Amino acid sequence: MQTSREPVTSGVVDSQAIDLRAVQSQVDAVLDGFLAGKACAAAGRGHPPEVVQTVRDFLAAGGKRIRAQLCVVGWHAAGGQGDATSALRVAAALELFVAFALIHDDIMDDSARRRGRPAVHRALRARLGADERAERLGAGGALLVGNLALMWAQELLHTAQLEPGRQRLVHGLFDAMLEEVMYGQYLDVMGTGCGADDVEAALRIIRYKTAGATVERPLQLGAAVAGAGAAEMEVLTRLGLPLGEAFQLRDDLLDVFGGPDGVCAPGSGDLREGKRTVLLALGLRRAGRVERERLVRLVGRADLAERGAAEARRILRDTGARERTEQMITSRYEEVLQVLDGAGFPQAVDRALRDLAVTATRYTS
Amino acid sequence: MQTSREPVTSGVVDSQAIDLRAVQSQVDAVLDGFLAGKACAAAGRGHPPEVVQTVRDFLAAGGKRIRAQLCVVGWHAAGGQGDATSALRVAAALELFVAFALIHDDIMDDSARRRGRPAVHRALRARLGADERAERLGAGGALLVGNLALMWAQELLHTAQLEPGRQRLVHGLFDAMLEEVMYGQYLDVMGTGCGADDVEAALRIIRYKTAGATVERPLQLGAAVAGAGAAEMEVLTRLGLPLGEAFQLRDDLLDVFGGPDGVCAPGSGDLREGKRTVLLALGLRRAGRVERERLVRLVGRADLAERGAAEARRILRDTGARERTEQMITSRYEEVLQVLDGAGFPQAVDRALRDLAVTATRYTS
Repeated sequence: MQTSREPVTSGVVDSQAIDLRAVQSQVDAVLDGFLAGKACAAAGRGHPPEVVQTVRDFLAAGGKRIRAQLCVVGWHAAGGQGDATSALRVAAALELFVAFALIHDDIMDDSARRRGRPAVHRALRARLGADERAERLGAGGALLVGNLALMWAQELLHTAQLEPGRQRLVHGLFDAMLEEVMYGQYLDVMGTGCGADDVEAALRIIRYKTAGATVERPLQLGAAVAGAGAAEMEVLTRLGLPLGEAFQLRDDLLDVFGGPDGVCAPGSGDLREGKRTVLLALGLRRAGRVERERLVRLVGRADLAERGAAEARRILRDTGARERTEQMITSRYEEVLQVLDGAGFPQAVDRALRDLAVTATRYTS
Repeated sequence: MQTSREPVTSGVVDSQAIDLRAVQSQVDAVLDGFLAGKACAAAGRGHPPEVVQTVRDFLAAGGKRIRAQLCVVGWHAAGGQGDATSALRVAAALELFVAFALIHDDIMDDSARRRGRPAVHRALRARLGADERAERLGAGGALLVGNLALMWAQELLHTAQLEPGRQRLVHGLFDAMLEEVMYGQYLDVMGTGCGADDVEAALRIIRYKTAGATVERPLQLGAAVAGAGAAEMEVLTRLGLPLGEAFQLRDDLLDVFGGPDGVCAPGSGDLREGKRTVLLALGLRRAGRVERERLVRLVGRADLAERGAAEARRILRDTGARERTEQMITSRYEEVLQVLDGAGFPQAVDRALRDLAVTATRYTS
């Protein structure tokens, strides 16, 4: 098992390529080691073992560790090489942050499943059996497990053995990221005060809730570990924001329409939940009166059946909302390529970022 | 307004006394300055202003800042003097942590009120008006506001301008405290697997959920800012744990019976919620079959009326559970005095701790 004491080089196999799959394994090894320590400490103190186990299961159930990979790529982009221990620890912190955010998201939306398993609050509810308070207590338990994942993310940063200046930079970026995501979620939950057909408002939610935390901040956090300056950080922002937005726009399309090649089945999670996506805003904006009223009536219904979902899909297609979303992804992807053309990154970094850009804008989950 | 840049001496007016009231104002000034910065940043970025305002209102509504005071006393106990900026920042972080914990607690218990106002999730629910999803969304909004309070607590620590060794110590203590509280809450919410009459289990919840975070960790955090060693930390543990337990036992008594001199009215929050207090465990353990069954039937009912609450109170009194809880407080208070007698703290520190011990074991809220 990987501990933070042994120096670990990152997945750069040669100057031409970064082995992203190897990075993923290394990050998982850091998470395994850290959580094994937590399990051991919990056993020694009589804490319930299922808390750590729940976090482990959540991580084991899936996730492509794309933020962790971006963090290590950002580290290389800023000249990081040799011992990658600190970069991997920060990368692992990002994955615990994702676990926190998703566990809390699922409570807020009362989602039934996540990564092919029951969502954490549903699993804890089931564990409580016939207790009439099971729904409330299960949500409470999941809230606390999510909180612990966030606290452990911070603990990973606090013990990343960074030199003080870089630690300050890492903390500043991480704290800014957390705040952005919370504000984005807050707008999402409590409403923007704008209509559901407000494309700009929907884009603003994406910008805060996803774009920064998915691509820009992970890249910058890795770069901060390598001691990047303001100019390097700015390039990563110019690259990260459009890529993060494209990532989310693709995610929204996949949720409603499934993958174009049948890899993902179309679902109706976002439609049922009435998620204020750019796709939906475009559909509402472009629809005629009758179809618009129909769409308003269909989305946000917890009991939306497949027939209703199919009708919503048809409206989103016929109005051109789907097509327009595809165009928005393409223009962002092209913007990313343009930034990469001018960035002058080492070849291995450039190639890894181009690969990640394709992955993020084509298939995500 | 106090900013973190100007050196601030703490509330020590002379070698004989620490002015705890002055400490409270200084901590509030740090919080005001920090949150004013957050409000300003939110305005600049188009974030909804009500998030910062909600946290400010929560802090303004009350709270005695006892943890913040203990932090500054701990700093003095370990020889801290002169510029108290860092100690006050850590103290302020503790108060934001308390805000986080209470906001989340109120969601989990669906408490109606806190500090004389509607609980945050209830206030946000009301703001959403007739929306049928208002209950779920209000809870979601409060969850996010609570998360931000926690994140801002960490940010206060990250920017406390501590020298690296002390910062590591402060982070280690803070992270340990957060983890303990979450585990304690988890036991509280999901059950200990032991009966509600298990006094030891109820004490274990107190130990994790309250005793550390209320007294021990705040004292140690302040001491860490002053660079305390292991021996000093250990004295603060021996002092802090019994005082923290006494504090919680008193809080439980006040919730059910009110203050002995009528300062607090008896409520029935803990009884309605079925909170697994030591008081309740003692009552169940000591009651005969009939009264035990009666007590089981009464507690944990959201619709418990004053008549039922009065009956539960009578059983808790008649079984001697109330009296036994009083004895447990007294023995812990005496333990605290004994530790203080041998601790050899400077006179001002000793006096402040004796004052806080009286406050914490007599009247709390």
